[in-house]
Amino acid sequence: MLSEFSLIDRYFARRARANTRRAALGIGDDCALLAPPPGEMLAISTDMLVEGRHFLPDVDPHALGHKALAVNLSDLAAMGAAPLGFTLAFALPKPREDWLAAFSAGLFELADRYGCELMGGDTTAGPLNLCLTVFGSVRQDLALRRDAARPGDDIWVSGTLGDARAGLGVLRGEPGMAHADAADAAVFRAALERPEPRVALGLALRGVARAALDISDGLAGDLAHILERSNVSARVDVDAIPRSAALARLPLAVQRQCTLAGGDDYELCFTAPAAARDAVEAAAQQAGVGVTRIGTITSLDPADVSRAATTIAWHDGTGAPLNLTLQGFDHFHAD
Amino acid sequence: MLSEFSLIDRYFARRARANTRRAALGIGDDCALLAPPPGEMLAISTDMLVEGRHFLPDVDPHALGHKALAVNLSDLAAMGAAPLGFTLAFALPKPREDWLAAFSAGLFELADRYGCELMGGDTTAGPLNLCLTVFGSVRQDLALRRDAARPGDDIWVSGTLGDARAGLGVLRGEPGMAHADAADAAVFRAALERPEPRVALGLALRGVARAALDISDGLAGDLAHILERSNVSARVDVDAIPRSAALARLPLAVQRQCTLAGGDDYELCFTAPAAARDAVEAAAQQAGVGVTRIGTITSLDPADVSRAATTIAWHDGTGAPLNLTLQGFDHFHAD
Repeated sequence: MLSEFSLIDRYFARRARANTRRAALGIGDDCALLAPPPGEMLAISTDMLVEGRHFLPDVDPHALGHKALAVNLSDLAAMGAAPLGFTLAFALPKPREDWLAAFSAGLFELADRYGCELMGGDTTAGPLNLCLTVFGSVRQDLALRRDAARPGDDIWVSGTLGDARAGLGVLRGEPGMAHADAADAAVFRAALERPEPRVALGLALRGVARAALDISDGLAGDLAHILERSNVSARVDVDAIPRSAALARLPLAVQRQCTLAGGDDYELCFTAPAAARDAVEAAAQQAGVGVTRIGTITSLDPADVSRAATTIAWHDGTGAPLNLTLQGFDHFHAD
Repeated sequence: MLSEFSLIDRYFARRARANTRRAALGIGDDCALLAPPPGEMLAISTDMLVEGRHFLPDVDPHALGHKALAVNLSDLAAMGAAPLGFTLAFALPKPREDWLAAFSAGLFELADRYGCELMGGDTTAGPLNLCLTVFGSVRQDLALRRDAARPGDDIWVSGTLGDARAGLGVLRGEPGMAHADAADAAVFRAALERPEPRVALGLALRGVARAALDISDGLAGDLAHILERSNVSARVDVDAIPRSAALARLPLAVQRQCTLAGGDDYELCFTAPAAARDAVEAAAQQAGVGVTRIGTITSLDPADVSRAATTIAWHDGTGAPLNLTLQGFDHFHAD
């Protein structure tokens, strides 16, 4: 396949051949060969990015290269796994050298920062589509799973939420974003286009946090995954959810929509026993990332068990309950 | 993502959750966790299939499900690796239940036959695109690599070549296929749509064969990969290349084009020392697949070394040389 695409050979295969150290056999054979370190398991995640759904046709290819790998590394971070390598399969309508040069530069800059090696791939002609599969390693007993939350756990998130959703609003010219000045709009776009996977935090949280995942579809929907898998409920203080100074300048309703139902945050949401608060703060400091407590895991209400549902009780900073569903969040999320 | 696609949940995720035994953690968490058996390495390969390039828009979805996994299992076979599992990422324009039911049935029938478990995935809206990443295991010292061929080795292929290319000709209504009757046309289409990965043969050839790959782009182009990686040349008897009775009823020129430059065969091409002929035959018998000797690995001509080229000397059954390039094979292949 590469013989048809000498540009792709230049920007990916040669680079991968030169860099590969971990894989015993990589680009150029039928399979890559890889083993996790002794006593650890391979953590594997795959994500597909499609033009028009995950990025706009005029996306900066350097940013796209970054983001395509970042969203996969974020899955490793959410397991507490250390990055090892990745495969890259993509369909391109027509190889353009400037596009491939920028895309591969964005991809490899991030890959090199995390020591994550390109180990194999596939390229074909077709509507633009990127499929990465990423490999990391973690001891099975230390992996941060979704099903490990327990009543009484604190609920934490890393960084700030909502900027990426605001960035999408800026690109779409949504009315709510008319309040943002140019500098804030740039902050939002950067959050959308260049998410930073919380790999160091995920590693530092091994043995400290209980359940964890990365927030890709919005806090409300993603936290629900932890609750479902762990058979618990939650109380969350909506006003405690960390947001950037730029987002805090938007109307409160927009802030809440962006932080709760935005998506594309790629921050970690995790739970930990209250006794581990100092350890969580120490892990965050070690990783150089802020973390914020936003709520508590609670026991599943028997009524919820009977209808096989899990619930999040949202409240504001005063403790007053908020009914977010009635405020149109489901519609917003489905959008 | 699955919450948006309940049909996909029904046909893939539930099934995967019920079946997963090898992965410590699969569908439903951020990553799957997998380790190769002690002393072995994971063999990893990824392939992307795009509508219009790898299959036609009106493809039978059951056959597509089979083929999407088959071409990946074929890569494992070519390494002598035992299948363990796979991830499936796909973009669909609009989930249609009948299509998904048939596609998943074709996929899982093959997966179950090889004990290959769905371990994770991603689904999104977009132009139809399938990206599978497959995982197998093999001892590193027994892996069948592309760079291990040596002068004097026999060159072997499994099964018969060319039927899949003839099947494409049937679908396209190519003039050369006008000679095929309905029964032969059905043979060709079956070869194109339901290739059988040579997993058992790959496993049986460990410790017997030297170099190996699977023939996906046509024997001429794929054998060249072994030659390049192993720094050798080859002599091949074009008339010794095994073909089906159906293909043997087509004009000789069409037979040669289909067997040498056809693609989509998914048979194994491998080399082995002449002293291992009995062992190769025994491995083939054990695997229930025919194998045929078609030529010999030769030393690289010093003239080829200087221009960094590898060559295949083609000859017919009488030993007379054939200049296939002059007969338009390059053009055919590029088509």
